[in-house]
Amino acid sequence: MTAYDDLMSFIRETGALGQVAARLAWDQEVMMPHGAGDQRAEEMAAMESVLHARRTDQRIGGWLADLEGGALDEEANAQLRHIRRSYDRARKVPADLATALARATSRSHRAWAEARADDDFGAFAPVLREVVALKREEGAALSSGGDVYDAMLSDYEPGATAAQLSQMFGALRPRLVALREAVLERPQPQPPTGPFDEQAQLRLAHLVAKTFGYEMARGRLDKSVHPFSSGSGDDVRITTRTSALDPFNCLYSTIHEVGHATYEQRIRPEYRFTPLGEGVSMGVHESQSRIYENQLGRSRAFTRWLYARMTEHFGDIGLDGPDAFYAAVNHVQNGYIRTEADEVQYNLHVLLRFDLERAIVSGELEVDDLEAAWNERFRADFGYAVDKPSDGVLQDVHWSAGLFGYFPTYTLGNVYAGCLHKALRTAVPDLDAQLEEGNLVPATGWLAENVQQYGGLYEPREVISRACGGETPSEEPLLDYLEAKFGAIYSL
Amino acid sequence: MTAYDDLMSFIRETGALGQVAARLAWDQEVMMPHGAGDQRAEEMAAMESVLHARRTDQRIGGWLADLEGGALDEEANAQLRHIRRSYDRARKVPADLATALARATSRSHRAWAEARADDDFGAFAPVLREVVALKREEGAALSSGGDVYDAMLSDYEPGATAAQLSQMFGALRPRLVALREAVLERPQPQPPTGPFDEQAQLRLAHLVAKTFGYEMARGRLDKSVHPFSSGSGDDVRITTRTSALDPFNCLYSTIHEVGHATYEQRIRPEYRFTPLGEGVSMGVHESQSRIYENQLGRSRAFTRWLYARMTEHFGDIGLDGPDAFYAAVNHVQNGYIRTEADEVQYNLHVLLRFDLERAIVSGELEVDDLEAAWNERFRADFGYAVDKPSDGVLQDVHWSAGLFGYFPTYTLGNVYAGCLHKALRTAVPDLDAQLEEGNLVPATGWLAENVQQYGGLYEPREVISRACGGETPSEEPLLDYLEAKFGAIYSL
Repeated sequence: MTAYDDLMSFIRETGALGQVAARLAWDQEVMMPHGAGDQRAEEMAAMESVLHARRTDQRIGGWLADLEGGALDEEANAQLRHIRRSYDRARKVPADLATALARATSRSHRAWAEARADDDFGAFAPVLREVVALKREEGAALSSGGDVYDAMLSDYEPGATAAQLSQMFGALRPRLVALREAVLERPQPQPPTGPFDEQAQLRLAHLVAKTFGYEMARGRLDKSVHPFSSGSGDDVRITTRTSALDPFNCLYSTIHEVGHATYEQRIRPEYRFTPLGEGVSMGVHESQSRIYENQLGRSRAFTRWLYARMTEHFGDIGLDGPDAFYAAVNHVQNGYIRTEADEVQYNLHVLLRFDLERAIVSGELEVDDLEAAWNERFRADFGYAVDKPSDGVLQDVHWSAGLFGYFPTYTLGNVYAGCLHKALRTAVPDLDAQLEEGNLVPATGWLAENVQQYGGLYEPREVISRACGGETPSEEPLLDYLEAKFGAIYSL
Repeated sequence: MTAYDDLMSFIRETGALGQVAARLAWDQEVMMPHGAGDQRAEEMAAMESVLHARRTDQRIGGWLADLEGGALDEEANAQLRHIRRSYDRARKVPADLATALARATSRSHRAWAEARADDDFGAFAPVLREVVALKREEGAALSSGGDVYDAMLSDYEPGATAAQLSQMFGALRPRLVALREAVLERPQPQPPTGPFDEQAQLRLAHLVAKTFGYEMARGRLDKSVHPFSSGSGDDVRITTRTSALDPFNCLYSTIHEVGHATYEQRIRPEYRFTPLGEGVSMGVHESQSRIYENQLGRSRAFTRWLYARMTEHFGDIGLDGPDAFYAAVNHVQNGYIRTEADEVQYNLHVLLRFDLERAIVSGELEVDDLEAAWNERFRADFGYAVDKPSDGVLQDVHWSAGLFGYFPTYTLGNVYAGCLHKALRTAVPDLDAQLEEGNLVPATGWLAENVQQYGGLYEPREVISRACGGETPSEEPLLDYLEAKFGAIYSL
């Protein structure tokens, strides 16, 4: 087993350096002095250069050749599967293409931010065209003659295919559109009224994070412009933000990030710094953040407990009891922005992006026609026109960063959350009684036991399927849950 | 110049990685969750492993061989001088010795902390013996037959020798002992009385840091157990601490760290990530922190301005005007602890350590006799007995970390500060009038122009000598300054 030990020792050191880069990225968003940006870019580039050299190190190829096909246990085989995938991926992309992509996405990120501020898609289009051309080239290198979009998808969701997702999403879309229309015809609930003191919001966010099982001794909660979770193992940090008028922003973005963070905190400690020591895919990660945020955090039972905490922290919030609070938390309303969307409409935003980015990658749609295609599709699904590019095609950072294949993992995560929620209800029959008392242990314990502890041991679909008693993941449980929940709230 | 460009590109990338390690070390003291210690040790070790491989990379030897002796400008020659020194140093120490030292000092640091808590030098002695044995071995490898202690000194103060320092320190000791005795026979000034609100202390620390020219846009001020400065260039962070009863702790440790930090902030930006882009030695670094803290910060003129700020921040502090405040700031009293010592006694603490550690390194003194030797010397210089090991031989972390040769740079820094202060007074004749108004620009501007901007361009003694109009650095200006200042305060 010497080759395996050598390989894993090399991989662990690379993993530790990857954690250093994660710490640096956290620092950049949360702590870095604003005058240090240029210097930091060089520091990050130096780390990336070290990491890239290690990921493409030919010794990995040698070790893999010695080991593959040998008699190894389940964990070792899983390690080799991940290492092989990442090694091949790193070596398939020529160095000059990787450099060109890094340069183009860096430039395009700045161009996107300016174009969004100016509401001018035309100013962004030429830069995005260049990114798309390079991403197509990269996709061709990665796919080795296979489907280019599937190769991109594999960076975020190994094993998923566009064909599979299309089928799933195709089943989602009509029922979501119908549910949305029905709900929006009904009278709307009252929102809570403030003031919502910022310090009180942060105190409540700390309380709620701990309630959902986030271990503060192995993490931190800070503020940042966009909430995120960062790091693995014993150092998993989350951020949140506050809005004076809307306490739900801080609260539910905290619960969402706690879902991501506890996944990382609860992976078996012996996997630390290895490919098994991180969440297995973006979709499975999002399944944890979304089940924490929605199926648990926005449930009628949990919001009873939360309503009491809200009045403790903010006094009278202008709502007539816990049922009114539950309705307010689950308020469905028109809006342009994906990240602000409710449970009913969120996936419609994602489906739109998935269809457009596949067309862009295949060449069926060109960048110059992207804005018009966006606006047409938005009107078809939402029934009204996009008012400006920053509320439409320019709202998300992803494409400027070259992240084609990332968007569908959001909805896949919601689908997985739907499956897990169904299985959890069976496994914990008195779940609502526990949630009403603010006891999240049965729910988060079940998720830790059935999903989180495994890290990268099983493939994404497999870990969900195992947790669900062997059932193939499907969109049905999510749709059933949404129709039942919002049907009840809106008396459909 | 291709070899030079290649070399410098490699060196800059290593420098950027060194800054990443500095950011990580800062995070560890200021931000890291307490449960992340073990994981962080592995992350730091991975960074160290990368840095060590780069510092000993044989390509450096090849580039140096191509370039040395060629026609290069002053800056390039200075770069080569530093790179040669650091490359030879890294390659002279066998890898297994470096590993053994890292392991021994890590163990010994824990043993020291426990022994200090238990006031039990005997428990620490065996571990320290091992460290000393390994340091002697390392010193022998580094000195190539020359003086072992000088080789150790060179890690912190290139070019300095024990013989030179002995002569300087020998001249300091009798006059400091005499000054100390004279001062302590006089009536003691009143200390200020609180309460000193912690938040008000931190607000004042921010104000004073900016007053001394610290650029907050390229740094941060946080709290930590032990104040420190960290990083170079555009990301130089400092920490401070507060004590409810003693506002001077926060205030003067802030000014001290600002001295270190502005040195790093004001080095020519084109030196970033190279050996010229950092303070040139511990002694020169300490000269900046000490002149900021003492010759400027504890001057009669500046304390007039500071007294007004103190009363603004804390109300009545129980002192009868700025003269009483000046006396309180410069209060000389008995004490065991180096880091809490006043200007008169501080160097006596250092001289004691310098003599003992030279004897330890040469083998003239053995670790088992160290406590007795410490206590004897302390009584000789200070006139009273050490009460317990944590107030004596166990008070400092340095030896447990293997930092032999570090202590004398503290006093060398004070000597250099004395020389610079004399030259500054000549260059800025109305210095006191400026300080009284809280205008530090003439003083810090002169230091930036004459010392700080150069970074590593000149050797340590040379940069001081150049700033002082070519005069050889000597202990005389420091002694003259101390005798005049404390003679006046204590009416000697």
